[in-house]
Amino acid sequence: MMSAATQQHSTLLAHKAFMDGCRVVLASKSPRRKEIFGLMGLDERLEVIVSEFEEDLRKADFPQPGDYAAATAKFKAAEVAAKVLPARSDNRPTIVVGSDTIVELDGTILEKPDDAQHAFRMLKSLSGRRHLVHSGVAVFTGACGSAQPAACWYDTTSVEFLAMSDDEIWAYVESGEPMDKAGAYGIQGLGGQFVKGVEGCYFNVMGFPMSKFGTCLAKLIESGKV
Amino acid sequence: MMSAATQQHSTLLAHKAFMDGCRVVLASKSPRRKEIFGLMGLDERLEVIVSEFEEDLRKADFPQPGDYAAATAKFKAAEVAAKVLPARSDNRPTIVVGSDTIVELDGTILEKPDDAQHAFRMLKSLSGRRHLVHSGVAVFTGACGSAQPAACWYDTTSVEFLAMSDDEIWAYVESGEPMDKAGAYGIQGLGGQFVKGVEGCYFNVMGFPMSKFGTCLAKLIESGKV
Repeated sequence: MMSAATQQHSTLLAHKAFMDGCRVVLASKSPRRKEIFGLMGLDERLEVIVSEFEEDLRKADFPQPGDYAAATAKFKAAEVAAKVLPARSDNRPTIVVGSDTIVELDGTILEKPDDAQHAFRMLKSLSGRRHLVHSGVAVFTGACGSAQPAACWYDTTSVEFLAMSDDEIWAYVESGEPMDKAGAYGIQGLGGQFVKGVEGCYFNVMGFPMSKFGTCLAKLIESGKV
Repeated sequence: MMSAATQQHSTLLAHKAFMDGCRVVLASKSPRRKEIFGLMGLDERLEVIVSEFEEDLRKADFPQPGDYAAATAKFKAAEVAAKVLPARSDNRPTIVVGSDTIVELDGTILEKPDDAQHAFRMLKSLSGRRHLVHSGVAVFTGACGSAQPAACWYDTTSVEFLAMSDDEIWAYVESGEPMDKAGAYGIQGLGGQFVKGVEGCYFNVMGFPMSKFGTCLAKLIESGKV
């Protein structure tokens, strides 16, 4: 029989006692990411420290749009990790998490819309079609330090939109919901009605790949990297 | 150009003014269904009238598990529609919606677990595998009366679970979350960590197929059946 220390788990559920003793820092101001950390039972100990990273990487430097999202997540988290990890005054395990979500349509990256007209054009381009959502995640830990992430990856979900009339796209734009969201829609709001179906992790579309993150963090804990 | 009355929409977004004048009755006590009606912007006018239907249909009488869910949704909504629709004192358009969600694994229907051991066995059977979630929906309207639903159908989503250790299944069962849920898990809670991915509508797994319902209701409105 494996010892508790080496037994492998796919989620954080069996690591509740360990996580209860951790400091968890989310380097993102997104209320949706905070909500997803709440679904994992991590809200009570969650600290939000917004990164000052400018999110100005050159998209053309990355072979795949998902690599751009992972790199942005890494720079966001690294900026916060560089402040938080060296300043630790105790031996409490510490985790700093950054994330970035983008929408890809035909190889082009859609981020947040600039204005209502831009939001309308983005939504019109998504109507009746499939697109991809990539969320990058970077995890820095006290055990691994602030120079390199203990883990950095991205997760991809395919999203199929219904065919939408101009009237309903405008009604949606006028609700104000699209303005702060990559691809100009929120799946967890009025925009969810446009989504015929997804293939992959739903939470990844909402802004954070919960399931893959749980498995990643369980592995880091089990290998002594937190 | 089509007139506003005959133009086709895929969602309720372009029918906000009409919906604002409607009476919307949800024949379900599920807080998750109420939340999904909120995402559609229908929470302010939503009335919840819990059906007294016993949910005791014989599963063997239905060719497919989804047909069982649709029939249960119909009987739940019919019971409430029979009280609400004939008693209308004004001409306000009225909609009564019933729904039922089940989990299907290898042709067997999983409903709510009886106790913790039962929840453990259900989750263990789902570990590392795909299963189907069917949500039935029935809509009765003032225009169509309480004898037959204006629409009745089900939507199916495929859900893939991670391989789970017994420890993490027990940790989840002990959280109490599984007990009131079909298949013994909630995708919008701690149980979401088990879900590697879905194919289809996420909200269908949560308990109500939002996107297909929006399209269905838009069609009923546009064909004068509400």
